[in-house]
Amino acid sequence: MEQHSRPLDALNAARGKQVIVNLKNGAMLTGKLKAFDIHINVVLDEAKETKDGEVKRQLGTVFIRGDTITIISPA
Amino acid sequence: MEQHSRPLDALNAARGKQVIVNLKNGAMLTGKLKAFDIHINVVLDEAKETKDGEVKRQLGTVFIRGDTITIISPA
Amino acid sequence: MEQHSRPLDALNAARGKQVIVNLKNGAMLTGKLKAFDIHINVVLDEAKETKDGEVKRQLGTVFIRGDTITIISPA
Amino acid sequence: MEQHSRPLDALNAARGKQVIVNLKNGAMLTGKLKAFDIHINVVLDEAKETKDGEVKRQLGTVFIRGDTITIISPA
Amino acid sequence: MEQHSRPLDALNAARGKQVIVNLKNGAMLTGKLKAFDIHINVVLDEAKETKDGEVKRQLGTVFIRGDTITIISPA
Amino acid sequence: MEQHSRPLDALNAARGKQVIVNLKNGAMLTGKLKAFDIHINVVLDEAKETKDGEVKRQLGTVFIRGDTITIISPA
Amino acid sequence: MEQHSRPLDALNAARGKQVIVNLKNGAMLTGKLKAFDIHINVVLDEAKETKDGEVKRQLGTVFIRGDTITIISPA
Repeated sequence: MEQHSRPLDALNAARGKQVIVNLKNGAMLTGKLKAFDIHINVVLDEAKETKDGEVKRQLGTVFIRGDTITIISPA
Repeated sequence: MEQHSRPLDALNAARGKQVIVNLKNGAMLTGKLKAFDIHINVVLDEAKETKDGEVKRQLGTVFIRGDTITIISPA
Repeated sequence: MEQHSRPLDALNAARGKQVIVNLKNGAMLTGKLKAFDIHINVVLDEAKETKDGEVKRQLGTVFIRGDTITIISPA
Repeated sequence: MEQHSRPLDALNAARGKQVIVNLKNGAMLTGKLKAFDIHINVVLDEAKETKDGEVKRQLGTVFIRGDTITIISPA
Repeated sequence: MEQHSRPLDALNAARGKQVIVNLKNGAMLTGKLKAFDIHINVVLDEAKETKDGEVKRQLGTVFIRGDTITIISPA
Repeated sequence: MEQHSRPLDALNAARGKQVIVNLKNGAMLTGKLKAFDIHINVVLDEAKETKDGEVKRQLGTVFIRGDTITIISPA
Repeated sequence: MEQHSRPLDALNAARGKQVIVNLKNGAMLTGKLKAFDIHINVVLDEAKETKDGEVKRQLGTVFIRGDTITIISPA
């Protein structure tokens, strides 16, 4: 029987890799995906906030509250 | 007895097919529907963000948080 | 004993019929009500997005996330 | 022992009567209260949308998603 | 052992008294507190909507959905 | 074993003391913290609404719905 | 078997350290992370509100409601 993949499988496959996290307020965070949970709370390592391709802030290890996230994609 | 269809049946029927996902912030993502769950968290493969018919960003495999989605329709 | 009707009874009575779905972002979708659930996630068949009485987009079978809906009325 | 009334008792008392439903987006719907549930999803019969005392749309039997409602009062 | 008071105790103490209910959309409703529940859904008797101290609308018995309320204070 | 403190411990320690409550709509309420619950619904005694350091409204005992609160700090 | 880290582990590791908490309304709070819970309600000690690198308000021990938070990062 075929087992359909679930959305969190995609996040799991991205662990340890560079991702871009877009927030509802328009901010864009880039970093290494360290952790996530079912609320889509996310932790990025060596994160930075970028805007129009430029780095605005070096954030280090950042905790992002899930309900502020719109999409997560590979960097 | 007739069995009424449920909304997630329609998403299930769209697995592996090209869909357009509209977000609350006005963004429009197109890609192959790979996975979804009851929160309507969605994963698209080979996704791209489009605006007015033009491609703004190639996103690859993208995770979309369900509460940011308004509608999902065939591409 | 009289049995009071419940809101979902009204949606059930509209199955297979043309309905208008108004969204929080002001969009208006028209189509045949195919499915709904307790979150008011809705699927319309042969749906189109209209604005000021004009068709903006042909959508086909569209999934609408419940929390983006304001009202559902007969077309 | 006195039994305190609960908010849904007031809606129950309004069943079959003309009510005005105000929505978060500023819209105002008037109609006969047919059904409601604990989420305050509401169904009005012979509903119409009004603005500044003028009828904008005849809606017929309308389903209103609870989380879009601010107040419900007698018409 | 001292029993700490809970927020709903304050609403309970205000039953039958004149209160002002402020809504997220800036509206201000005044009336006699008739009922409330744990969602802070509220019913006011002889309610009126006021703005800058002037009465805009006589509402009668009004049901207010809890999630639209910011604060409730004595009139 | 060390017992980590929890956020509600900080509110508990502030019972009976003057606090400032900031709301999502920008309003600022000052008063004596009388009660709170796990939803962060809050009751202040002898509360007043202030703006730019000036008192706008004397509120008396005010009930504040938790989901409208951003931060609570000592006055 | 490898144990994946969870988002709250990152907050736990930041206990007692200086953090920056960004809020949905654009405010930025800096202080020592004293406590948090699963809703991401947070308490900071010796907190201050900053804007463009300047201190706007000394807040002391501040309670921050979780749903108003976007990200938490090291100061």
